[in-house]
Amino acid sequence: MRPDKLISRGKKAVVLLSGGLDSAVTLYLAIKNGFLCSCLAFDYGQRHRREIENARRLAKKTGSALRVIKFGLPWGGSSLLNKKKSLPPAGSRGIPSTYVPARNIIFLSFALSYAETIGAETIFIGAHIHDYSGYPDCREEFLRSFQSAARYGTRTGSVSAGIKISAPLVNKSKVQIIRLGKSLGVPFNLTWSCYKGGSSPCGRCQSCFFRLKGFQEADLKDPL
Amino acid sequence: MRPDKLISRGKKAVVLLSGGLDSAVTLYLAIKNGFLCSCLAFDYGQRHRREIENARRLAKKTGSALRVIKFGLPWGGSSLLNKKKSLPPAGSRGIPSTYVPARNIIFLSFALSYAETIGAETIFIGAHIHDYSGYPDCREEFLRSFQSAARYGTRTGSVSAGIKISAPLVNKSKVQIIRLGKSLGVPFNLTWSCYKGGSSPCGRCQSCFFRLKGFQEADLKDPL
Repeated sequence: MRPDKLISRGKKAVVLLSGGLDSAVTLYLAIKNGFLCSCLAFDYGQRHRREIENARRLAKKTGSALRVIKFGLPWGGSSLLNKKKSLPPAGSRGIPSTYVPARNIIFLSFALSYAETIGAETIFIGAHIHDYSGYPDCREEFLRSFQSAARYGTRTGSVSAGIKISAPLVNKSKVQIIRLGKSLGVPFNLTWSCYKGGSSPCGRCQSCFFRLKGFQEADLKDPL
Repeated sequence: MRPDKLISRGKKAVVLLSGGLDSAVTLYLAIKNGFLCSCLAFDYGQRHRREIENARRLAKKTGSALRVIKFGLPWGGSSLLNKKKSLPPAGSRGIPSTYVPARNIIFLSFALSYAETIGAETIFIGAHIHDYSGYPDCREEFLRSFQSAARYGTRTGSVSAGIKISAPLVNKSKVQIIRLGKSLGVPFNLTWSCYKGGSSPCGRCQSCFFRLKGFQEADLKDPL
């Protein structure tokens, strides 16, 4: 996909691009919808920080800008930040230990700062609730509510309807996301989902489990 | 003030402590109200980053924990982040060029992550609208709205009323804040307000202007 063929003049977006499958599909969807995308990835001490390299490749592939913001969360609070903690097995219920307190709020806040500065009208986030029913900051109610706070708290919001938070995958299942990605030509081989972040996916963590299941249900082969 | 004399068992707060006058008064107020305070300061490329040292001294003085989070905002967008830009003169109208897009949203998001992890029930922020009528992220509507987003987006918020965002100074004028600080024993000499961040306050930037005016109106001498 050549993004420059699809860009409407001046329609800018900031895309939260982790390097995972969901955010890759979101980026391709935003481009298809005519947005000139500036991507944002985070280096926050996650055990699978190799995903940032995947974000770089995806941004490069689509000709999109990418900024990587680095920060620490010294209070921890998540097995995703601590290699000594074990990851929850696939299929466990409730909010998983991989939940990082307020992570998406932090991500969206940086995206808001970026969007307001460059004059982007929309922030895209690949959040969806279907498979990971445990993450409160992936819910539509949260995203709507954050959009409202963002409107009150920015210069842009005091002179216009404010910046829109768009989560186009929010009600989709993994198999639907994979099918959508396939139709958009998303290079799945450039994405990374495994929480462990080794040289190849562990195949056992929640993230691997849902990815594998999604590819199986979509009758497709995961190139990873 | 010995904070340990005032702590109610288990009543924890996170306090956004810039090292400025307003946040110092807020910290002392939180302590007086029985909170065990964990403070948060940010090193985000502000031209007056010397304020962080003041935050350290204030935290030490009150026996409070302090975490400093470092990050960059590579997209700029504010004269507070760029020494080459001139600062707006005191008395200019509208949203000043020192406005950093979404700064308080970013600060509050980190505070939320910290608060949720340590089990703090309240986040204190020294925001007030009276003098700096230009900052949209100091408005009560924004703070209420952020609290609502925070409730939807956190684990804590899905099992309780969520974390409260408290801005006790929000409707106070600078002179009222200084009088309150005086009554609480705030060591004004440990605070820093000047945007320029040199070795002594410039006396001309908006922040210096309102501070000086406040001390004059309160009939007090600014130790700086």
